[in-house]
Amino acid sequence: MKHSPKLTRLIDSLRALPGVGPKTAQRMAFYLLQDGRSGAAALAAALTDALETVVRCGRCRMLTEDEHCAICSSAERDVTLLCVVESPSDVVAIEQSGSFRGRYFVLMGHLSPLDRIGPDELGVRELMAILAEGVVRELILATNPTVEGEATAHFLSEVASGLGVRASRIAHGVPMGGELEYVDGGTLAHALSGRRALS
Amino acid sequence: MKHSPKLTRLIDSLRALPGVGPKTAQRMAFYLLQDGRSGAAALAAALTDALETVVRCGRCRMLTEDEHCAICSSAERDVTLLCVVESPSDVVAIEQSGSFRGRYFVLMGHLSPLDRIGPDELGVRELMAILAEGVVRELILATNPTVEGEATAHFLSEVASGLGVRASRIAHGVPMGGELEYVDGGTLAHALSGRRALS
Repeated sequence: MKHSPKLTRLIDSLRALPGVGPKTAQRMAFYLLQDGRSGAAALAAALTDALETVVRCGRCRMLTEDEHCAICSSAERDVTLLCVVESPSDVVAIEQSGSFRGRYFVLMGHLSPLDRIGPDELGVRELMAILAEGVVRELILATNPTVEGEATAHFLSEVASGLGVRASRIAHGVPMGGELEYVDGGTLAHALSGRRALS
Repeated sequence: MKHSPKLTRLIDSLRALPGVGPKTAQRMAFYLLQDGRSGAAALAAALTDALETVVRCGRCRMLTEDEHCAICSSAERDVTLLCVVESPSDVVAIEQSGSFRGRYFVLMGHLSPLDRIGPDELGVRELMAILAEGVVRELILATNPTVEGEATAHFLSEVASGLGVRASRIAHGVPMGGELEYVDGGTLAHALSGRRALS
């Protein structure tokens, strides 16, 4: 059935959200206009405000409304370690693991010639400027373990070695808590070739 | 990790959407501020606009920005049939089935004394006013087949008979295309007691 024009517009707009199809968008629209009116108003305001003020950190390209993000501004981080990730979500995931105290550099994607995403789109020039400062001693490449992520990591490792900075790649292997029989062959091959001596 | 205040506010606001938890909200926020900026601006505008203009149809309580919704305004609907549903989504579902050409009345909920939802909140007074016009000859009760939906249907059937209008309940039984062995006992009991003669 055809909804009224403004309702149709709202439903179509909600489909811009990742993972939201036509049925979910309709359910969201009805909810927002009935029981969720105050939440809807708050969402519209927060969205408008964030679009106007949230930018990328001038140093690591993380999303923030300040000139530099909280991590880059912090005096408690180890400035000799720089961890390169593909997206802000990866920063959140690593921070939540509590296992890294260095700084980050967010590529906002990975090398993808077909989509015309090259080094410039990923901020490699800014990354090189940071490395050229001579403070970073290790560049940890934490791009995704996909074909594009691996290619991006390989490219960045060459950039780093060109500037005399040591590059490392996060370990690939069997995830903790998983069962070996359900792990795919590629991961098992990585786990075997990356084995470590125990004594 | 703690996001910047405006990013936190956006993520919290997105959680107002039905079915959106903290992880999804974060993913949505990052997406909207990176690749989905134009969609985000359109969403904020559509939301603000809809909140200001979309109201309930003066007759059937469906969501619309006009005084009367498209169905109530249409001259092609059978005005002697009135179908009562719980929510706007139900109107959409029945319209998409293409099997009903009458009008609707949207309760926007069901009787629920614990939540202080009584006849007044469901617009029963407006429904009675429509029935009192003497045009509607059959009130089809299409509330959900839940305990609350059944109670609401029962209540409305008494309201209708008090005004001399015939009330009917949509059939409950085995869904089309399903397999009998996977149908729950309550549905099977309804299907058996509601059996129809074939000749």
